[in-house]
Amino acid sequence: MKLSVVKVGGNIIDNQEALHAFLKQFNALEGPKLLVHGGGKIASELGKEMGITPNMVNGRRVTDKATLDLVTMVYGGLINKNLVAVLQAMGCNAIGLTGADGNTIQSVKRPVKEVDYGFVGDVQGVNAYLLQMYLKEGFVPVFAPLTHDLEGNMLNTNADTVATEVAKALAEVGYEVSLKYCFDKPGVMLDLQDADSLVKELTPVNYATLKEEGVIAEGMLPKLHNAFQAVEAGVEEVVLGLAEGILQQQPFGTVVKAEDKLAATS
Amino acid sequence: MKLSVVKVGGNIIDNQEALHAFLKQFNALEGPKLLVHGGGKIASELGKEMGITPNMVNGRRVTDKATLDLVTMVYGGLINKNLVAVLQAMGCNAIGLTGADGNTIQSVKRPVKEVDYGFVGDVQGVNAYLLQMYLKEGFVPVFAPLTHDLEGNMLNTNADTVATEVAKALAEVGYEVSLKYCFDKPGVMLDLQDADSLVKELTPVNYATLKEEGVIAEGMLPKLHNAFQAVEAGVEEVVLGLAEGILQQQPFGTVVKAEDKLAATS
Repeated sequence: MKLSVVKVGGNIIDNQEALHAFLKQFNALEGPKLLVHGGGKIASELGKEMGITPNMVNGRRVTDKATLDLVTMVYGGLINKNLVAVLQAMGCNAIGLTGADGNTIQSVKRPVKEVDYGFVGDVQGVNAYLLQMYLKEGFVPVFAPLTHDLEGNMLNTNADTVATEVAKALAEVGYEVSLKYCFDKPGVMLDLQDADSLVKELTPVNYATLKEEGVIAEGMLPKLHNAFQAVEAGVEEVVLGLAEGILQQQPFGTVVKAEDKLAATS
Repeated sequence: MKLSVVKVGGNIIDNQEALHAFLKQFNALEGPKLLVHGGGKIASELGKEMGITPNMVNGRRVTDKATLDLVTMVYGGLINKNLVAVLQAMGCNAIGLTGADGNTIQSVKRPVKEVDYGFVGDVQGVNAYLLQMYLKEGFVPVFAPLTHDLEGNMLNTNADTVATEVAKALAEVGYEVSLKYCFDKPGVMLDLQDADSLVKELTPVNYATLKEEGVIAEGMLPKLHNAFQAVEAGVEEVVLGLAEGILQQQPFGTVVKAEDKLAATS
């Protein structure tokens, strides 16, 4: 059974018009599907109003207790429930979730090494049972980027990671998963100034070459690391690009596949 | 099949120690169960920090857009997800919900008559299907007092009403429902100063008498109105009292029953 796992980030969440267009495209996707959303600027803006100043260490945001409460409210409440309400109005039977709900995603607080990231959760396991039940019944799970530690605490977790881990877990129970990361570029580009330089297919082999040549920008590395982890764990393909491109029937963006999957389809 | 629908209010939500004790008692309830939680002071406190002043008309709070966003965050995010995480840590397989999730509770924005209550939803229907699925599978639904209008908007809805409507809908599909309102008094009291004046059983007949005599305080009337509505619609019993009383096997509080139900059990 095919399944689309779509990750949408803050750049779209923050823009009412872009968000509405995105949700329409998401709703039009055929077959079982699942959405993972990120945060967006609204959390920092509300934080400012509440006197919570972002706590940065070495350029990385640290999730202190006040920030954890803030993202639990904004990601798990405001953003998640409004996405669900709008999808419901479109006839999409969405159900909002965090990893705590039905114990779907367990994590552990990231161990303190050089940096104490605070209440950030590294995913330990995904419980596919409830998700399978939803998908079989035609419900559309909508995940906020939050998990829990099974000790009573919510934890802040990167939305790309949530999408990747959920995709891997559902591939493991037999779904043919297409993991789609919507982002603000048409895909992996050899030259950001040249629209024609889109890398249409990425395999471990050409990825290694491009990395060596320094062509792939640093910001892309964690995303592509997640993507290759996913295809190695059995996810059929990972597609990266603009939402309006990769949610069409004919994907338009960068497709990441395992070597053997490419061989099988070409 | 027996089912407990428990409503817990702000007085317990606001007190970490009382909340933990309550959740332990809730978790110890045998058989299928469902929790509905109210708001608490935290929403008004956060609102103040964010410069949202409560908008009151004739002594009733009006839910303007800023307040709706605030309660969506606080009730649907902060409170709901933390309750779920703590229940999960206790081994209770909780799933947090609003009425938008899985389209479980549809409402309409309250029509404007003398007062415009703003984004307040009057419940139109409860979709029992998803709730039945959860209960059959051993999941424990945990509702925030929020609904949606199927037109893309979240709406603020009284937690007593959410509990009553959910109890009625599940009674209708065959559950033998005990609806338990936890509140800050031992039950309905003839004299608030006299602990021995607890009314142990309330039926339409003695309720009418007590109302006529002016014994039942005004604040109790909406709660008891909800309670009688529930038993008239097939809910087995409604129990009102302190959480530590009514969550025990031997209920200790006021039991509201329909006349025929009392006859059948006495």
